[in-house]
Amino acid sequence: MTDPNAATELRILGIGGFPEVRPGADIAAMVGDRLVAAGLAPEAGDVLVVTHKVISKAEGQLVDLDTVEASPFARRYAEAWDKDPRQVEVVLRQSRRISRMERGIIIAETAHGFVCANAGVDASNVAPGVVCLLPEDPDRSAAAIRDRLGERFGVAPGVIVSDSFGRAWRNGIVNVAIGVAGLAPLADYRGKHDPAGYELRASILAIGDELAAAAELVMHKLEGRPVALIRGYLPPVNTPAGTGRDLVMDPAKDLYR
Amino acid sequence: MTDPNAATELRILGIGGFPEVRPGADIAAMVGDRLVAAGLAPEAGDVLVVTHKVISKAEGQLVDLDTVEASPFARRYAEAWDKDPRQVEVVLRQSRRISRMERGIIIAETAHGFVCANAGVDASNVAPGVVCLLPEDPDRSAAAIRDRLGERFGVAPGVIVSDSFGRAWRNGIVNVAIGVAGLAPLADYRGKHDPAGYELRASILAIGDELAAAAELVMHKLEGRPVALIRGYLPPVNTPAGTGRDLVMDPAKDLYR
Repeated sequence: MTDPNAATELRILGIGGFPEVRPGADIAAMVGDRLVAAGLAPEAGDVLVVTHKVISKAEGQLVDLDTVEASPFARRYAEAWDKDPRQVEVVLRQSRRISRMERGIIIAETAHGFVCANAGVDASNVAPGVVCLLPEDPDRSAAAIRDRLGERFGVAPGVIVSDSFGRAWRNGIVNVAIGVAGLAPLADYRGKHDPAGYELRASILAIGDELAAAAELVMHKLEGRPVALIRGYLPPVNTPAGTGRDLVMDPAKDLYR
Repeated sequence: MTDPNAATELRILGIGGFPEVRPGADIAAMVGDRLVAAGLAPEAGDVLVVTHKVISKAEGQLVDLDTVEASPFARRYAEAWDKDPRQVEVVLRQSRRISRMERGIIIAETAHGFVCANAGVDASNVAPGVVCLLPEDPDRSAAAIRDRLGERFGVAPGVIVSDSFGRAWRNGIVNVAIGVAGLAPLADYRGKHDPAGYELRASILAIGDELAAAAELVMHKLEGRPVALIRGYLPPVNTPAGTGRDLVMDPAKDLYR
């Protein structure tokens, strides 16, 4: 019998020792190898969170700034704000729309529909003179890792590809899910009733983003720990599996574009 | 010797069996009792996340709608969008500024500076005809719980008071930290260098919000589990303890008010 007082437990395991990732690397194999080295194998219900950076590198989503010719617009903006004009050019090429361009900050909407600083273009944890882009299709990247791990271990974990995004209204960046495979990114409570009988009308929890945020707590930025395994998560409502795109607000509904 | 391949582990423990909370209830005592019932006592570095709802109830932050007279503005808006005019009135009274008021959605800035739907006024998990407000000072609430648990157990955990907020650009709500005591809500990586020697310039992680989001994964909305204990979290950088206000963006810097 279960003790009704016992705590429910979720474990977040930070997987260390990840080697440097080069273009063409087999990320699913590397993740699997690191799980084995840590004495772990996927179990039913596990969720694996993988920082997009290692996936972008493996997929060759890197741009050598020496190969980039900045447009006049990028050059003017870069000069005004003391930026590298070639990096500004890459940001513009990754953007389908600029949401804000103020005080040297570019908040852009990417081809995927994500709204984030610099369209996700980032110079950290890559070689000098190189910038890293978001994966072309983070949902496809997540699904590929999930499938490969399923083949190898017989159990396919849910997979989230994460990045750290800024927010409106709040300081600091948080990890969010930009790619999702094999799990429900949203938990839809609408139509459920609370213990007092009140019908919840607006409660859709962004579980995918909460799982990504939780994983960041063991990843840290500077320690080569780009993968976390979340074990013991029980979805609260029966919502079908989906993709990272489910977390992107329809522009027609967005009051803050 | 530590195995370099071993996973680092964070545990999130959902504390169940919380009784119904009435105005005047001693939340710190209730939380302590539930920890004891679960066989847990705070350890150094633990973070306790408490849903604001139980704190608001204990602090009497409840409004009986029968006592509210709606203003002409509230009545007109409520009629246009099929809302309870008294509840709209309470939302307006909790707002110091309306950010958006479209399609029946009110995004408001509260007296605390939070930007959220309905200024945090909520009718779920309270008696019919009653709405719940945010705590008057969630940082004070968090500090009081921390102090009381420290007296009782000899170890004071970090405490976060949480609520679920919507976001710009992304679907679904996520748990965030509206009150913080005894921990650093932000992890400031600026000036640190990545393994390639690149200096991080914009990386401030909103740890408080990530901890709150992680806790939500074991709380769920309908199961009377308003408290979670996070054990094993190691702050990545040495940032001083702060408050929930540190997570609120200065309006002068906010591009999306």
